[in-house]
Amino acid sequence: MIAVPAFVADYQVSIDAELRRLVPDSGATVQRAMAYTLLAPSKRVRPVLTLLSAEICGGRRAPALAASAAIELVHAASLILDDLPSMDDAPLRRGRPANHKEFGEAVAILAAFALLNLAFGTVAKAYDPAVASKMSAVLSDAVGIEGLVGGQAGDLLAAGQPIEFEMLERIHRGKTGSLFVAAAVAGGLVGGGHADAIASLSAYAKNLGLAFQIIDDLLDVEGDPAQTGKAVRADARRTTFVSFSGVEGARQLAAELCETADRALRPFGRRADQLRELSAFVAGRSI
Amino acid sequence: MIAVPAFVADYQVSIDAELRRLVPDSGATVQRAMAYTLLAPSKRVRPVLTLLSAEICGGRRAPALAASAAIELVHAASLILDDLPSMDDAPLRRGRPANHKEFGEAVAILAAFALLNLAFGTVAKAYDPAVASKMSAVLSDAVGIEGLVGGQAGDLLAAGQPIEFEMLERIHRGKTGSLFVAAAVAGGLVGGGHADAIASLSAYAKNLGLAFQIIDDLLDVEGDPAQTGKAVRADARRTTFVSFSGVEGARQLAAELCETADRALRPFGRRADQLRELSAFVAGRSI
Repeated sequence: MIAVPAFVADYQVSIDAELRRLVPDSGATVQRAMAYTLLAPSKRVRPVLTLLSAEICGGRRAPALAASAAIELVHAASLILDDLPSMDDAPLRRGRPANHKEFGEAVAILAAFALLNLAFGTVAKAYDPAVASKMSAVLSDAVGIEGLVGGQAGDLLAAGQPIEFEMLERIHRGKTGSLFVAAAVAGGLVGGGHADAIASLSAYAKNLGLAFQIIDDLLDVEGDPAQTGKAVRADARRTTFVSFSGVEGARQLAAELCETADRALRPFGRRADQLRELSAFVAGRSI
Repeated sequence: MIAVPAFVADYQVSIDAELRRLVPDSGATVQRAMAYTLLAPSKRVRPVLTLLSAEICGGRRAPALAASAAIELVHAASLILDDLPSMDDAPLRRGRPANHKEFGEAVAILAAFALLNLAFGTVAKAYDPAVASKMSAVLSDAVGIEGLVGGQAGDLLAAGQPIEFEMLERIHRGKTGSLFVAAAVAGGLVGGGHADAIASLSAYAKNLGLAFQIIDDLLDVEGDPAQTGKAVRADARRTTFVSFSGVEGARQLAAELCETADRALRPFGRRADQLRELSAFVAGRSI
């Protein structure tokens, strides 16, 4: 396990403060359930990607925090849903009992619903209408049946049956890649990036997201639950990149995807060094 | 049972066409699950309220259709969640098996999530940024822990224990009232209404929504499943307005709320006659 790049810690602190501001761990049961998963220890890779994307486009960190939080709100919602008994039936998440184990299924589902809803509310209230409206559309496309929801449904419906490599890739581009892309594009929008800069960030994020998913599959086979916060081999019934290509093949594929991701950063020159550190971290995360 | 006012049929046709355009009953399993609940026969009271609110503010019907659809998308999402085994565990909805009975729990949950998500995407793409951004904030507030989600959670957590009348009212203002208010305000925004006109529509909708919920409680006790599309006494374990005030008391309360609703329409004069027909329908719906 390679450590998160040093510069990331500072971003994580800003992101965590913004998330705590949006969803205090207090008050109504549903709000505490939202905070339980949202505020649990996490590397915050997606929101960090949003902040770096905003900065590389010339924006500052502070105005990008709401966008980064919106991305993490959606991610937390998807984690709660993934773990439900009717989906992956996972007992552990981020090192603690899954949301529904702690709050019951009904409250967990409502918390996920409220987290997604709050992501859109946060975007609508934080930004001037032109940026808010574009970001809301980007977020909705990333979550919808061509994105997170479609990927999760494809994953569930494919469980226990053989699938083609292309289908597996499509599922994971939906489940993981789409929110990585939205994270980068949202940052680019807040940062005032030009269309070509945002397209480069989007290409970087698409490949980084797929690499991230492959490494996640590897950790599921090889990882230490104390570090991953999840049970090992939770995905045993699934076809994954590891079951397709073996451990070495999957590691190789992740490394190649990170190289492809880095190539998309060329137009930014040295300004993209932190994004390169991020992809190096993702590529090396299981070694 | 009083029939829906004659003018409503024409609005329903426009709304249904817009909903079918947004969510065709075809393609991926999740999309078919979304369409299953969304396109099932319904009075479309909420989206009709959006269209009437837009028109009374001087807007036309066509541009308001997307807003009315967004409201119904959120409503359909909430129906799917309400019926889940971990919530009301309801077998029937809109005269057919509940969504999870037809598609399984995982797909039903993803469909609800995708419907909420599509509501925000629809708003972001249909309107100029200033209107879209305001409407998105209104929608998010209506769904969040002060609205639908909070009301549903309060309802679940209160089940099986005695609650105060004030708490019951707060739960139902969240569960039903908040989306009625959002429906009216969204219409007012699209129609270009001034703040005072939108405030009047909001007051009308708040009282209409609560009346609607009380009548729903009455139908649960007295209704014919062939007409309500739901099992009778599904709410027997709950405290409702009927268990508080009895059948006659609840009917009286609903009538009073509709009168209060109508008083909020005074500034509009005769232009509000269709909204008055709508509240008369709601008030008389169980008689």
